[in-house]
Parts: sequence; structure tokens; C-alpha cells
Amino acid sequence: MTFTPFDFKMMSRALLLAKRGIYTTAPNPNVGCVITRDETIVGEGFHFRAGEPHAEVHALRQAQDQAKGATAYVTLEPCSHYGRTSPCAKGLIEAGVTKVICAMQDPNPQVAGRGIQMLQDAGVEVQVGLLEQDAIALNLGFIKRMSTGAPFVQLKLAASLDGQTALHNGVSQWITSTQARQDVQKYRAQAGAILSTSKTVIDDNASLNVRWDDLPQHVQADYSQSDVRQPLRAILDRQNQLSPELKLFDTEGEVVTIGENGDIPIALNSDGQLCIRSAIEQLSEQHNVNHIWVEAGATLAASMIKANLVDELIVYLAPKLMGSDGRGLIHLLGIDEMNEAIGLNISDLRMVGQDIRITAQVKQNLPETE
Amino acid sequence: MTFTPFDFKMMSRALLLAKRGIYTTAPNPNVGCVITRDETIVGEGFHFRAGEPHAEVHALRQAQDQAKGATAYVTLEPCSHYGRTSPCAKGLIEAGVTKVICAMQDPNPQVAGRGIQMLQDAGVEVQVGLLEQDAIALNLGFIKRMSTGAPFVQLKLAASLDGQTALHNGVSQWITSTQARQDVQKYRAQAGAILSTSKTVIDDNASLNVRWDDLPQHVQADYSQSDVRQPLRAILDRQNQLSPELKLFDTEGEVVTIGENGDIPIALNSDGQLCIRSAIEQLSEQHNVNHIWVEAGATLAASMIKANLVDELIVYLAPKLMGSDGRGLIHLLGIDEMNEAIGLNISDLRMVGQDIRITAQVKQNLPETE
Repeated sequence: MTFTPFDFKMMSRALLLAKRGIYTTAPNPNVGCVITRDETIVGEGFHFRAGEPHAEVHALRQAQDQAKGATAYVTLEPCSHYGRTSPCAKGLIEAGVTKVICAMQDPNPQVAGRGIQMLQDAGVEVQVGLLEQDAIALNLGFIKRMSTGAPFVQLKLAASLDGQTALHNGVSQWITSTQARQDVQKYRAQAGAILSTSKTVIDDNASLNVRWDDLPQHVQADYSQSDVRQPLRAILDRQNQLSPELKLFDTEGEVVTIGENGDIPIALNSDGQLCIRSAIEQLSEQHNVNHIWVEAGATLAASMIKANLVDELIVYLAPKLMGSDGRGLIHLLGIDEMNEAIGLNISDLRMVGQDIRITAQVKQNLPETE
Repeated sequence: MTFTPFDFKMMSRALLLAKRGIYTTAPNPNVGCVITRDETIVGEGFHFRAGEPHAEVHALRQAQDQAKGATAYVTLEPCSHYGRTSPCAKGLIEAGVTKVICAMQDPNPQVAGRGIQMLQDAGVEVQVGLLEQDAIALNLGFIKRMSTGAPFVQLKLAASLDGQTALHNGVSQWITSTQARQDVQKYRAQAGAILSTSKTVIDDNASLNVRWDDLPQHVQADYSQSDVRQPLRAILDRQNQLSPELKLFDTEGEVVTIGENGDIPIALNSDGQLCIRSAIEQLSEQHNVNHIWVEAGATLAASMIKANLVDELIVYLAPKLMGSDGRGLIHLLGIDEMNEAIGLNISDLRMVGQDIRITAQVKQNLPETE
């Protein structure tokens, strides 16, 4: 199976189109589609919001009669099932498309190759795997949840360059710059849910929602305010400490509490703690959450890392030294050997304003402690 | 005063030549020279080692008769004084060079404009300031010491991503990767002196010298082993704890101790501590040190930062989490307000192997505490 330079160009375009949905499609995946005939684009589209037409439908509508004998580039295998829309594979066949190139197979068990099969059964030529890694990067949450049942978890950490999150007296506002805080708004806006603790919510009177005014200019330019989703705010609240006058409840977006008597009831484990794994699983199952963005303190961060629950760390380091009598980034107690340290793979490193932003995957985990 | 694209190209070349001396010229500055006639290079050279010919001499030798009516591009004002060599300004005049472009004036009080004056007095056209910032970056130590009397101080720090330098039990080898340790060798090799403490030397049985085998391939390719200088190793040893069987004394390179009874005698201050400022000043004065590379623990690091003695931090962060019961990067006690935190300007950020390397200038210092 070989792809031409034109194929690469068209799939890159489809991927760029797909990306237009990163703030809006959850829990659906981001998908882009380009339809060409005689190496000319005759239609294109992307999935904008769950319940609205899929990328292929937009592209076919634009292509009209020119879809006959055309090639479709789709960033994800066309769907084969009847959901809120009829199957895209069927739509492509009916429109007379003769070749479909997909970046990747759909991991959704309801599809998982059936869309490709449906196309092939109708005599459509199908190729899979063009720019697959880029397509995977677009839908980390959707893919992880569809293939494992568990959501993709990103953990935000912010500290001074010497790894301190607060001074010894607890003062912590503001370590990072405005630009870093705007960057956090983007991550929040892309997530299906924000996970935090009642302690963080109460200590900071944190709203933990997406503040339109704090989103970067380029996001404000590409979306209208009403389009940006508010992620679910899921708060671990073991002891029912959240009171209704908190800013959390007075800001846009839904709140669910997790605890013995929470909206999501979770029993305490033998240590008297909430089982975070169970909390995450239920959040994902009950609320269709693909992607969780965690903003909390050093204790939750450590528990989640130790329990192998974190896929990716987003670490902001401010250009400051705060001194070792401050508070540490993460509470991992009892590492006695260097090879027990939590290993990370750094996948991205850049400046965000005056701060450093590090993206890292958790590599070698400790044995689970929960 | 305007420079042509050709001027920029020639000065860039002179700067590249100058850089060839970064491991060898100390305490002399790095200087490069290109001589052109009719926009053709007729001679070039760089200063390789103190006591050997200056850049201009090499370039003039190569140019021979073609220096008559030529233009010389020099990264530093030609010298005007009789040292181990005769003044380069005189050499350029005698060779018949008619125009000299310097990147910057020489901050050495023995020169400081006199070289330019000597050239102009002889009717040579002189322009100053082409790519000056690049020329300054080449000789931070030389320039700082010549203009202030104090050496340029770089402080090395290495920690895990969460700012820990050792586990709670003291285990610290090896946090960073081979590549980061090789990178450290480059910094050592460029410094006039390495400053450390008897505690660090004893705890790690550290040799603190430049190990040829550990220098990166590209350095080994550009230099022969005998050319690379061993920096002076200056050890703060308040209580005469260094014993002769330490690896420090069994490795190539000179050692000076600093303490009440040290090679550099320094009295203790009222806190019973060595005055680091005084130690550095004497090291610089007695041993012509322009550039000090500090490798020590969190306590010395904090004292030096608080005393406004550090110009630049070189921070290696390893892709690991070690937990907050480990040892902190820097011991700054008693910062009560966020605006008392030590501010940094990050000037470079990159990966070195699997580690992050951050270069930062110390911005807003605390009031001096020594």
C-alpha cells in the first residue's frame, strides 16, 4: 500500500479540519474529511459537535454530484452504525465515492473495522494508515476510552523552577504567569471533565471552569463564546465539605461530587480514602468522559501517579526560586532507590510566556499502592 | 554608520573563528579576525592560547602583502599595549590595513579605546559595534571581570523534574543522564575555575576536573587532548577537611583550598562562615579567573544566590519524579512573600539527551545577607 504526495497533502488538510473541533466535539472524536476528484477538492468538512453531522456528511453535501467516482480522505474510519446520524460508510457508497483513505480504524467497538468492511463489500477501494500517528494524537481520550474503557488522564502541575508549589506559609498565588494560566484554560476547554478535590476548591475558592475571557486570542478568534463547552467539574469530596456558596456552584458548567454520599457514590477503601480508580471509571461510564484534566494538590497528584492512573503530565515551571522550605510539587513518600523514581518521557518542551511548559508521559510506574 | 551584508558575513565568520578558542584561551578573551580585499578573504585567524599570537597576527601572516589596502574584521578591539605580544593595532597599521571593523571595544582597562585611537591616529577608518551582542556572549567572563573586577559566575544545578537532588536517604547517583554529564564537562572545560566545597568533594569523592573521555565527540574532534585546559579547582574548606588521598588530588589539574588556613586565606565572618564574595574576589585576583563554574550543594547555591554572586544558572532537570521527601534543589529559607522569590530570566531551554537544560539569569535578588 503506497500513498502519493497528493494523498499526504489531502490527509494533512483533513487533519487540520478535524482539529477545528477540539473544543466542541467531546465526547465524540475529532474527524475531518476531504473529497477530491481528479486531484481537485470537491468537498470538505469536519465534525463540530455531538449530534450534528459527521465530517463525511458535510463534505458529501458540498461535493454533491462530484462525489461520483471521487476519493474521500477521512481521519477516522467512517462509521457503520445507526446513531443520531445514519452510517457515513453508507453515505459515501450511495454518493458514488470509489476510494476511501482513512488515517486509522475507529477504535469504537460499535465500528472497529465494520465501516471499512461495509465500504469494501460495496466495491469501494479502501486504504488505512495514512498519517495514523497524527490522527491518534487528535483523539487520545476517545481512543483510550474506546479501546480500554478508561479515560485519558492529564495531570497539571505548576511550580517554581525549584519544584515548589507554595511558600512555607502556604502563599501560592501567583506562581505562573498570565500566559500559563491562559494555556491551562485551553486544556480545560478540551477536556471532558476536570477532576479536583474539595480541598483545592475550598482553599482557592476555585471555579475550575472555562473562562471565555481567559482563553487565548486565537481560540476566541476561531470559536464563538457559545460554542465552547464547559467541561464537567468532578470534585472528590470524601467528607461532604463543599458548601453551596462556593464560586464553583455559581459559575457556568455542571458539577458532580464524588464521595460516599456524592453524586457519584464511591465507598471508602480500607485506608479511609476514596478509590480514585473507581471514581475515574464511574465518571467515564456515567458521563461519557474520554479525557480528564486533573487540577489538584500534591497529594492527589501522587496518589494518581502511584496508582498508574496518569497518562500525561503538563508541568508549568515558573522562572523563580522559592526555596526548599516551601511545598513540594508532588507527595511521593518512601522512594528509597533511584530506580524506584517515577520515570517520564518528555514529549514536548517550550516556553509559554515566561514559564516553561513540559509535556511528559509517565514511563515506569511503581507497583500500585491502592 | 552602516554595515553591508558582506560586513555581516565576514564578522559572523570572525565570530565563528573566535569560538574555536573557547576551551583554550582563558584567561585571555576569544577573538577572531578576518582580513578581506576586494570582498575576498585574504587572511583569517583566531586566538588559541594565552601567550600565543593574537587573532590579528595569524590573519596578517596569512594575508602577507595583500593586507595593504585591506579591511580587517575583528571580534574585539585590537590591543594597544605591549604584553607578551606587540600591539595588534600597530601590526594592522604597519601591514597597511586601511579599514578595521570591530564587534566591540575591549573592556580591558589597558586597552579600552586606545587600540581604536591608535588606528584612527594612523589614518585607518574604524567602525565599532557590528554584531556586538554576539561578541559579548563569547567573552562573558573576560568582559565582566575587566569591567567590574568580579568574575562571571555560573551555578550548576541538577534535579529531578520535581526539584529534588537526592532521595530522602541521600541517594543521588545518577539523577541526570550521560549526555547531561558530558554537557557539564563542556562547561567545566570553558571555565577558569571550578568552585566547590569540601563537603561535595568528600561526599562524592569528586575529582571535579575535565575528563577528556567524557567530553562530547564534537569537542574531541575539534581539539587534541593536550590542548584542553584543566580549570583551577577551588575548594571552600573551612575546617581543613580535605585529605590527600582524595581523588581530587590524584587527578590532573591544580587545586587551591579556600579557608582560614587555605591556599587562599579567608577569615570567617561573624556567622562563622567563609565570606564567599571575598573568596571569589581573591580567586579572581590571584589566579586571573574570569569565569567560575560552581558545582556544589543546595546550601552554597542558596548563599551565593542570596549574596547576588550568581550571574547565570545552568539547571538540568531529569525526567523523573522523586517525591517531596527528597532533598531540595536550593536551600533558601524564609521567603514569606511571592515577590521575595528569586526572579529568573530564562535565556535558553533545550533537551540534552533525555534531560532538560535551562539557562537562566538571576533577575531580582534579595537584599544581601552576608
